[in-house]
Amino acid sequence: MKLATLLDDTRDGRLVVVSTDLARYVLATKVSVTMQGALDDWPNARPALQKLSDQLNSGAVEGKAFDQAKAASPLPRAYQWADGSAYLNHGELVRKARGAEMPKGYETDPIMYQGGSDSFIPPHHPIELITEDWGIDFESEIAVITDDVPMGVTPAQAGQHIQLVVLVNDVSLRALIPDEMAKSLGLLQSKSSSAFSPVAVTPDELGDAWQDDKLHLPLLSTYNGALFGKPNAGRDMAFSFGDLIAHAAKSRVLSAGSIIGSGTVSNKLDGGPGKPVPAGGSGYSCIAEIRMIETILDGAPKTPFMSFGDTIRIEMNDADGASIFGSINQVVKKHDV
Amino acid sequence: MKLATLLDDTRDGRLVVVSTDLARYVLATKVSVTMQGALDDWPNARPALQKLSDQLNSGAVEGKAFDQAKAASPLPRAYQWADGSAYLNHGELVRKARGAEMPKGYETDPIMYQGGSDSFIPPHHPIELITEDWGIDFESEIAVITDDVPMGVTPAQAGQHIQLVVLVNDVSLRALIPDEMAKSLGLLQSKSSSAFSPVAVTPDELGDAWQDDKLHLPLLSTYNGALFGKPNAGRDMAFSFGDLIAHAAKSRVLSAGSIIGSGTVSNKLDGGPGKPVPAGGSGYSCIAEIRMIETILDGAPKTPFMSFGDTIRIEMNDADGASIFGSINQVVKKHDV
Repeated sequence: MKLATLLDDTRDGRLVVVSTDLARYVLATKVSVTMQGALDDWPNARPALQKLSDQLNSGAVEGKAFDQAKAASPLPRAYQWADGSAYLNHGELVRKARGAEMPKGYETDPIMYQGGSDSFIPPHHPIELITEDWGIDFESEIAVITDDVPMGVTPAQAGQHIQLVVLVNDVSLRALIPDEMAKSLGLLQSKSSSAFSPVAVTPDELGDAWQDDKLHLPLLSTYNGALFGKPNAGRDMAFSFGDLIAHAAKSRVLSAGSIIGSGTVSNKLDGGPGKPVPAGGSGYSCIAEIRMIETILDGAPKTPFMSFGDTIRIEMNDADGASIFGSINQVVKKHDV
Repeated sequence: MKLATLLDDTRDGRLVVVSTDLARYVLATKVSVTMQGALDDWPNARPALQKLSDQLNSGAVEGKAFDQAKAASPLPRAYQWADGSAYLNHGELVRKARGAEMPKGYETDPIMYQGGSDSFIPPHHPIELITEDWGIDFESEIAVITDDVPMGVTPAQAGQHIQLVVLVNDVSLRALIPDEMAKSLGLLQSKSSSAFSPVAVTPDELGDAWQDDKLHLPLLSTYNGALFGKPNAGRDMAFSFGDLIAHAAKSRVLSAGSIIGSGTVSNKLDGGPGKPVPAGGSGYSCIAEIRMIETILDGAPKTPFMSFGDTIRIEMNDADGASIFGSINQVVKKHDV
């Protein structure tokens, strides 16, 4: 089934069930007013929402026209958002761009940062920031939303706690990252508010594309109207979502509604990391990567980071070309203080 | 006024107003069922809660006996928890203990890490962890809870957004920190769930002890029944809570109910950092600091980190010796997977 949160005059919006083709929705108020409320009581909410979904998709309930532009992020604010870096190619490239080494053991122990989760941007709202000087970049990612996860779960157990799958734009401020990394206590100012896809889907909705706790489809990033990347999210993912959840839950429980991200989706190039994109290659899910490739090829980056007015669209289609999650569709805009 | 959240069978507990002497409480249900609900609507909730508080303290409302052991952390789960390191002496000592340098600019730009906030421990519940091998340590701190903070606020503006003050035990797993710092993306596994004082108080409740966005009273840490530290939280705080909030809000809004921490309260010793505690000195707010002093004096640390069964009590008294926030009172306990 597919779920979304419609913007209204409350902080947490209104939970709706969306039809498989994203055309229609029905309010889920009788199950839960909010997405968090449904996740808090998931064992009861899930079958009730599934029933609504079946009625909507069969036509037994007509529903109303679904407008992605009126959607909030599925969880407009969340209690937990931790983002991995499961595509090692991304980490290798962006660290190389900074002249930094990959940390010891990065191929066996996931890298993950604790994100801020109190104010996610609606998927069709602007990315508002004070200055372009911060090196504004998008990062196209997959994330999962869990139910309650006990401390110390194994990766196999952790996979059973995945309840919903979403897309993410993990907005990153590249110019602020080196100073924060030098402090060694993590990313805070350099990770401004993220945006999530209009629609969250249960793993069963993904069919064969969901295997081994990974999503095996291309993730499409369109930058200023041109296709920028289409890496397959199931390829080169060194750690599955089960691995990532287990990592986050090593020394703590994760409460229902925790969001765990994949990190920037990135496919290794045939020539290995740092080699140019072959014809028909998969491209990029952030600007930092192409800048590194340009540096290797030409001695200097030529693609600038985002300016006010630049647009980024992130989506994923099924085998028939139909949008699964709806699109993240954002423009960068100056925020006046 | 003083507020608390009583544990019940829900995730967010029940908001209550507590009398100044912590003896009695009255349910705040008619204002808001939960603390987060009150913070979401603070301009309306605050005066209504203040009225309840006045009635309770005047005796116009009798209330019921307040039992700290039945309190949750004031926000049992929160949307934002970011913890600074405003007492530079702490950072200097613990980094020295690891053979690490302080980062460039640490005296002018606050160090802060993004914490996880989905599962805070009730203040009188055990700290459950899987193994003592993680190097279990407490960190006694002050934190503030804000209303909605705009992006890019100045420190002076930020101070106006402080609505509540609490104490924190920011449980830290010392043995996991070096690997996470080597990854440069922050602390996640090494910061297990924190606990907050039973009672949150408005700054005006603190009288003269609240000045310049700092809390000028000794913070008492009692470890296994013996006084371990009593540093003054107003002394040696290099960055005020206004500074810390402004740091966190540089590139993002902070939503109502955001918790911003001071970092481990630590007073410089007369002889400077790394010198032994003078008689009548202020002691420590975590074990890592005393281990560093022991190393400097004797060549090796002798105080071990916490074992299962060890207890930590954190509290703060007013000038008359009365507890302001109630106590954080925890035992470390083995968590069975």
